[in-house]
Amino acid sequence: MDLTPAPVHDCPHVVIVGGGFGGLACAQALGSKRVRVTIIDRHNYHLFVPLLYQVATAALSPADIAEPIRKVLRRHDNVDVVMGEVSGIDVASRRVLVGSDGYIPYDRLVLATGSVYNYFGNQRWASVAPGLKTVADARRIRASVLRGLERAELTKDPDEQQPHMTSVIVGGGATGVEMAGAIAELTRCSLHRDFRNIDPTTARTILLEAGERILTPFPEELARYAHRRLEKMGVSVRVQSPVENISPGTVTVAGEVIPACTIVWAAGIRASPAASWLDVESDRLGRVPVDATLAVEGRPGVFAIGDTAAAADEDGRPLPGLAQVARQQGTYLGQALAAELESGTALPPFRFRSRGNAAVVGRSAALFDFGGHRLKGWIAWILWALVHVYLLVGFEKRLLVSIQWFWQWLTYQSGVRIISDEEVCETDAVEAAASNADDDGRGSR
Amino acid sequence: MDLTPAPVHDCPHVVIVGGGFGGLACAQALGSKRVRVTIIDRHNYHLFVPLLYQVATAALSPADIAEPIRKVLRRHDNVDVVMGEVSGIDVASRRVLVGSDGYIPYDRLVLATGSVYNYFGNQRWASVAPGLKTVADARRIRASVLRGLERAELTKDPDEQQPHMTSVIVGGGATGVEMAGAIAELTRCSLHRDFRNIDPTTARTILLEAGERILTPFPEELARYAHRRLEKMGVSVRVQSPVENISPGTVTVAGEVIPACTIVWAAGIRASPAASWLDVESDRLGRVPVDATLAVEGRPGVFAIGDTAAAADEDGRPLPGLAQVARQQGTYLGQALAAELESGTALPPFRFRSRGNAAVVGRSAALFDFGGHRLKGWIAWILWALVHVYLLVGFEKRLLVSIQWFWQWLTYQSGVRIISDEEVCETDAVEAAASNADDDGRGSR
Repeated sequence: MDLTPAPVHDCPHVVIVGGGFGGLACAQALGSKRVRVTIIDRHNYHLFVPLLYQVATAALSPADIAEPIRKVLRRHDNVDVVMGEVSGIDVASRRVLVGSDGYIPYDRLVLATGSVYNYFGNQRWASVAPGLKTVADARRIRASVLRGLERAELTKDPDEQQPHMTSVIVGGGATGVEMAGAIAELTRCSLHRDFRNIDPTTARTILLEAGERILTPFPEELARYAHRRLEKMGVSVRVQSPVENISPGTVTVAGEVIPACTIVWAAGIRASPAASWLDVESDRLGRVPVDATLAVEGRPGVFAIGDTAAAADEDGRPLPGLAQVARQQGTYLGQALAAELESGTALPPFRFRSRGNAAVVGRSAALFDFGGHRLKGWIAWILWALVHVYLLVGFEKRLLVSIQWFWQWLTYQSGVRIISDEEVCETDAVEAAASNADDDGRGSR
Repeated sequence: MDLTPAPVHDCPHVVIVGGGFGGLACAQALGSKRVRVTIIDRHNYHLFVPLLYQVATAALSPADIAEPIRKVLRRHDNVDVVMGEVSGIDVASRRVLVGSDGYIPYDRLVLATGSVYNYFGNQRWASVAPGLKTVADARRIRASVLRGLERAELTKDPDEQQPHMTSVIVGGGATGVEMAGAIAELTRCSLHRDFRNIDPTTARTILLEAGERILTPFPEELARYAHRRLEKMGVSVRVQSPVENISPGTVTVAGEVIPACTIVWAAGIRASPAASWLDVESDRLGRVPVDATLAVEGRPGVFAIGDTAAAADEDGRPLPGLAQVARQQGTYLGQALAAELESGTALPPFRFRSRGNAAVVGRSAALFDFGGHRLKGWIAWILWALVHVYLLVGFEKRLLVSIQWFWQWLTYQSGVRIISDEEVCETDAVEAAASNADDDGRGSR
């Protein structure tokens, strides 16, 4: 069944798969041009992933960083939004397959499907150690940390409390550093007066990094600063510590079995399955090779951007998997395709202009790398906050996030500390493990 | 296993089951008194249920109306919070049973367990037509309404679109009226420019009431006003329309089968199972009979408040199931128990003072009944908004809710239009039903 929303206009049809930074920027650049645009996403919202760690650590609500795609694009009459799951691409007949029996024909196809976490062959770890890509992931991590403390509060033996109060973050990139810092602040600052039986300031947060140091994309000076700050905040940072095994409630590293209620995977990503849809050979991370115009070779009319694409800069160096890369590629491609389809102009090559790379460690501590120039500490933190508020879509979100951040800065209180019904916490396994070594009858549960 | 959080103080122990309006008010009144208090709830937060319909209709985020119980009570050193599921009460040994093998001993027990929806013997309708009591209910209803529109947008045949765009609310009390008004506003005002293929202003919202008129607890004049306003907003209000059957995707009333994506149950409540825990005879609505001091007869030291209790005013008229009743009873009982346990003062009888009864119909339309005095229209609406912002716990929530309401009032935009992954939408059944009558191949799915 042709799912193209009616009425079908008589102009070229650009289909965009994915409503993340790249796809949305592309749709916006094509907005109100003489082309027909359909953007497909499995969710009805654009998620501002750089702040997702704040949802996972109870600082923000999902809606604060999720804007309906329809709302963002509604003033462009030529853009349709389809909420659906793409199941494949029929390159020969130029159709995107949606769901079990729907399709949408295209003249140009932009793949902006993003990435998923890479468990490097240990896919069974995924159910125990979620990554941080979706609202559901964030809610699950939030529930796991908070529920762990609730269980510890009800546990009398101090030795049994510790596993419920332990979080392990695997991967010392920007996401891992941000998660570790935010979990440490949540337990040690925000919750420290809430409990009677346990002392949340003794909660353990462990950041594991397989490599020589954390934050490898950043200069060593900034990484050392982040390392020191994390240790000061109570995070135990362990470098050269590749994970050997993950099972429900435990992480094994260097032969040591660490019992942990919350395990977060932040150790690398791979592209979503666009390459297999196109039947092209992908790189090691599953990304689709593209030329300087982001076109996929041998697949006429098909382009890939963001984490889906293995693109390189003018000097042949691979572009990093950052929101700003996806966004710039999306805007470029939208403008280039509009010019091509409206007046036959050939696509110019894409050029990436770095806006600097940032990571936040915690309260009043962030770092910026602008290539030559570097910034760290509270000035970087304020700059980080301003930039991220500015990058959010819509005035209301900016205002709400600003107020919540200001309030948290004043009071040290995270406002979204709710454990929803639906979340499944892997601590059941911790509990089961603990109760085996338990002599007061709980072992018989 | 005794779950009482350590250290165990040597003073009388009041255990409160339920962190709703009644239980929380009781704990607050007992705060910093010379008694030990433990409050048990299955959630870690107090939910401001009167605004839950705004979560269900994408106006607010769950966290805007959910405050962690620990946070509310943390300045009272004598109050412990236990997140757990009460499984029963051992009246003989004065213990509350928690989970499968935990217990908490009490000297005084306050049951404030609230109510659940009453399906009047048709419990199988519960899975199809959720009530509105929990955050999960609200998220599910929100996802159902929004996903229905997304599906309608992808459906070409107008006859097939309508079921996806139809919401039926069963029960014309305050909750039903508020839900119907808010769903109509969401579809007809907030979303009307978002779609291309469908016109959301043609979405149907049907309010079914079995009785002679809606809003029976209110004076007829106010109910007539609400009825007129709802019709003006596009809600089809049908009185004397008892529901005959509910199945996935359809509601049957007066022999007519109405296909509907979203079905909300708001047709009456019954008390949670406290009566069966106590093994006392409950009234028709499952409530525990209590005397003038809210004590349960024949169960020494046990009290019931809020929706759990069948209490009466001085004239013997039953008290309504309102937040203000629960709150006043909680405060009264906390103060009375503190006086009794500290200095042996006998409990005085409880007296309810009505603060007036309110319902909101929609934008600039609410109604207040203060007994003698009545108020309706935009003045009532502003008063309603002020009162509800004031009643929220905490300055931050008040500020965030005020801003969101003001923004929605200015822009007609609901800010929380996200469909989360987890929600299950009953429209799969609608779709299945529709595709049977469908000739383009979808029937073979």
